[in-house]
Amino acid sequence: MAREEVKAIQKVPEPTLRRLPWYLAIIKLLQGKGEAVVSSTQIAKEINVDASQVAKDLSYVNVAGKTRVGYEVNELADELNDFLGFTAPHKAFLFGVGSLGAALLQDSGLRQYGLNIVAGFDVKPELDGTSINGIPVYHLRDFAKRQKEIGATIGVITVPVDKAQEVADYIIAGGIKGLWNFTPFRIRVPEDIVVQNTSMYAHLAVMFNRLNSINL
Amino acid sequence: MAREEVKAIQKVPEPTLRRLPWYLAIIKLLQGKGEAVVSSTQIAKEINVDASQVAKDLSYVNVAGKTRVGYEVNELADELNDFLGFTAPHKAFLFGVGSLGAALLQDSGLRQYGLNIVAGFDVKPELDGTSINGIPVYHLRDFAKRQKEIGATIGVITVPVDKAQEVADYIIAGGIKGLWNFTPFRIRVPEDIVVQNTSMYAHLAVMFNRLNSINL
Repeated sequence: MAREEVKAIQKVPEPTLRRLPWYLAIIKLLQGKGEAVVSSTQIAKEINVDASQVAKDLSYVNVAGKTRVGYEVNELADELNDFLGFTAPHKAFLFGVGSLGAALLQDSGLRQYGLNIVAGFDVKPELDGTSINGIPVYHLRDFAKRQKEIGATIGVITVPVDKAQEVADYIIAGGIKGLWNFTPFRIRVPEDIVVQNTSMYAHLAVMFNRLNSINL
Repeated sequence: MAREEVKAIQKVPEPTLRRLPWYLAIIKLLQGKGEAVVSSTQIAKEINVDASQVAKDLSYVNVAGKTRVGYEVNELADELNDFLGFTAPHKAFLFGVGSLGAALLQDSGLRQYGLNIVAGFDVKPELDGTSINGIPVYHLRDFAKRQKEIGATIGVITVPVDKAQEVADYIIAGGIKGLWNFTPFRIRVPEDIVVQNTSMYAHLAVMFNRLNSINL
């Protein structure tokens, strides 16, 4: 028991948290094939990570592997899903219903990973009162009211880059605790606020550059 | 001249390539405000990066700062845009027109960053011949034919995770050089193929975990 408590308090390193969904993807594939057990060596082989790294990463999750046998596939899949927060719905608002914002509202897949976007907000009057994929869109000035009714913890930021900081400050003041930032702007936040940056354009920049190097 | 040639051949580190779009975002903001010059110290302050790091990152770009003055905003914006590949259109196909794939076809913003998705592919017969946001969707079996006509270099992978490797192998054999992988599967590729992983669910996992730690 004492050991589990220590685990719960221990901060999981970000690289571990980023690798665990890869393992989950592999484990789900094995589950689909009807496999009963999986070893860390097997997972490691599938994705070019050290087996010791896989075992270490999985040690954060509350599931015991058996020596020379491995993990039970079903148990590991369930525990990983729980551990990663994919089974608990997290209420989110999306800010900026432009091209990317509207696209993310369309993506019902996020819900399967625990992100439940329950409303979109924008400053364009013509969007107020519309809905996308069944998700209502409101004017940004109604955020505080909706936040009182709904109590979202996460804000998805898809506003234009020059509005990113302003909107972030506004919604943090209104009780949003976590920002999923899709703009290329580095948003400054108080210490108790979580930010995750998904820089799609930065990924594109890396890919374009690497493609050019190949063609040299 | 000799120095520039060395620069062109030099491999730009991935962290640099990921930070440069942040600087570009700041520079565009300054441009919008009518600023004429910007120093690396100014950029550094805006986004909490060391000024020496900013100067070093910008040294890869073909633009000269003046000591104690800084960079010309317009020139730096143009050069950075070029350097990052955002001004040259890169033809791309998207594979897997499900929820996320369809959403990405909707996102016209990608085109402004040099990614020109010209067709989508799926195995669902009912999608063949349809279009999303003006982009045609074809059956996957027509990929080779369309590839001959169009010659795309990039494949955006939004297929189900258990199809990621299979589809990647198929399109690489057909001439695709760069994969933008949105699945949580680590795709294995030959050495001369570029892969960029955008693991939206991994980012969610990190955010959920950090939000839980705050609430402890």
